[in-house]
Amino acid sequence: MHRLTPLAESLPATVPFVGPETQERSRGRPFAARLGANESGFGPSPRAVEAMARAARDAWMYGDPEVHDLRHALAAHHGVPVESIVAGEGIDGLQAYLVRLLVAPGDAVVTSLGAYPTFAFHVAGNGGSLHAVPYRDDREDLHALAAKARETGAKLVYLANPDNPMGSWHGADAVTRFLGDLPEGTVLCLDEAYADLAPAEAIPPLDPTDGRVIRMRTFSKAHGLAGLRVGYAVAHPALAGAFDRIRNHFGLGRVAQAGALAALEDGAWLDHVRAEVARSRERIAGIARANGLQPLPSAANFVAVDCGRDGAFARRVLDALGARGVFVRMPGVAPLDRCIRVSCGPEPDMARLGEALPEALRDARA
Amino acid sequence: MHRLTPLAESLPATVPFVGPETQERSRGRPFAARLGANESGFGPSPRAVEAMARAARDAWMYGDPEVHDLRHALAAHHGVPVESIVAGEGIDGLQAYLVRLLVAPGDAVVTSLGAYPTFAFHVAGNGGSLHAVPYRDDREDLHALAAKARETGAKLVYLANPDNPMGSWHGADAVTRFLGDLPEGTVLCLDEAYADLAPAEAIPPLDPTDGRVIRMRTFSKAHGLAGLRVGYAVAHPALAGAFDRIRNHFGLGRVAQAGALAALEDGAWLDHVRAEVARSRERIAGIARANGLQPLPSAANFVAVDCGRDGAFARRVLDALGARGVFVRMPGVAPLDRCIRVSCGPEPDMARLGEALPEALRDARA
Repeated sequence: MHRLTPLAESLPATVPFVGPETQERSRGRPFAARLGANESGFGPSPRAVEAMARAARDAWMYGDPEVHDLRHALAAHHGVPVESIVAGEGIDGLQAYLVRLLVAPGDAVVTSLGAYPTFAFHVAGNGGSLHAVPYRDDREDLHALAAKARETGAKLVYLANPDNPMGSWHGADAVTRFLGDLPEGTVLCLDEAYADLAPAEAIPPLDPTDGRVIRMRTFSKAHGLAGLRVGYAVAHPALAGAFDRIRNHFGLGRVAQAGALAALEDGAWLDHVRAEVARSRERIAGIARANGLQPLPSAANFVAVDCGRDGAFARRVLDALGARGVFVRMPGVAPLDRCIRVSCGPEPDMARLGEALPEALRDARA
Repeated sequence: MHRLTPLAESLPATVPFVGPETQERSRGRPFAARLGANESGFGPSPRAVEAMARAARDAWMYGDPEVHDLRHALAAHHGVPVESIVAGEGIDGLQAYLVRLLVAPGDAVVTSLGAYPTFAFHVAGNGGSLHAVPYRDDREDLHALAAKARETGAKLVYLANPDNPMGSWHGADAVTRFLGDLPEGTVLCLDEAYADLAPAEAIPPLDPTDGRVIRMRTFSKAHGLAGLRVGYAVAHPALAGAFDRIRNHFGLGRVAQAGALAALEDGAWLDHVRAEVARSRERIAGIARANGLQPLPSAANFVAVDCGRDGAFARRVLDALGARGVFVRMPGVAPLDRCIRVSCGPEPDMARLGEALPEALRDARA
């Protein structure tokens, strides 16, 4: 009926993630513990909340399309030139732009099997040819990724460090070596959504003179502003500047810019969240072990918990947790899908998890 | 250095609009009257402000990717099925998706010469071949648009009704006839950003069984929420549903959804704004006439003021107003560019305009 482009016509109407609200509507009541989307139940900085409330009164004005104040603050924070910073509608939005800039139909892109579905969604949406290599020992396999990039002449390679959904990570040196193993002209999209929560040794220094990599960060995780949709990337100014050719220039609204800026300025809140997340990782690990399950080490605000059997079993555990009001997610492919992925959260949510897990396991084993 | 796609490589790094903040930074102080971006200086509904402030505390949670509550409220408000409503990151964001769905490189698209630059930006960004026909008597020329669509076999035609930047409009019957004049398979992007402020007779009834047209609305204008970035479209469910193939599913955050929903529910505020806008249009017209200039009739929240000479003269008036702290914009092409475009605003801004205009005209004539 409508003359969609051949590419658009070929795309499935799939959705990378089903939101917990959809599940809540279908089950007829809200979840008691929202531990599935790696949001920060510790909340945003009170200063960010105040800034958003103040900006709400000014919401009749478009946000600054240059995102001047936030980008300058980020540049100062990271010690990089402002020209190397591009701000946008979350990492999802920035990845959409990046793929559009680099990937024409048929162009090769490399990722890991089971890595971020939204990145794969954007590659498909631009007609890219996605090559996925398996994880190795629950970590993204840097050797296999680089080999696949060389084999396919990939224009773009995706790596999340720390990794989602497994929580594993590579050290800065390994990431830097990996960059050197990529073929000439390949761009690495280094998704560092969880960088604020990772050990310092996992994060290579930012070097915007290096055109081979674009580093993506977000206010959705440690900063607790997932519902505001603000991400940013640090890249060589030539690549950062290219976003201006296609980005939605007014896409980052006034409330979003104000909230993100205030969050950035509240380093004490970030420290507080880091401590809470570290505590919560231990708490999740303890609950898992108490139930005979194996928590995986995590450098992020969630813990992948090995349920000890196959994906079907983990799915039953997840469903049984959901039925008890505890929302979690799980990796999509084997062998990662032997795990459920539990986001960190405040103690009441942890207590609910601790209550629900033994019952969920009993159900899943029945 | 970076292997951009040939399309991305070919795009200029131009920006559809320079924000007033950029001008403020360059002049070293803020504008006293912000009357250039067709924002609503009457502000958002206090209930929307309250809803945003409340949602700010919950901003750690992603927004519902189905935008369930807002879309259902819009469906009820307009008396259309919820499947015909797609919500997104402003009309800009929705147009970006629409163009991507319909326009492959080389596909023909028709618009008016001097119409919305952001639409043209999206067409260029997707490699579309844009055909622009001149305005006629300061209105978009429906006959010429339809003829050009037939001549080029356009996949997409753009019409703003009421029009931006001129404020002119066509009656509902003319728009309906225009739709019938388009060739089979052409989609009309009917940009109705200013519908809430237009006379009822300008707006055809919404009919989502009609696959030939997609109607775009926004919370940025009458609702005073430009800084929140929420727009929506009403279309045949087949077209509305196609957005799911490419849209940024979490692109509409929690604060944005909450603010828009509260604004929609505050009909009294909308009535108040409509009255204020009507008053302000008269006020701008009066100021223009008092200075020997000709205000054009407007069905929107701005008035195009004919400065009586050419584009260079209007540009001097605009610059001189800016130097006096009054931010306005102007159309980009002749003969529309004999006008400046002044947004409606509260009385203090009108008073500033009334003070500045005689001096600006004196400067421009000097």
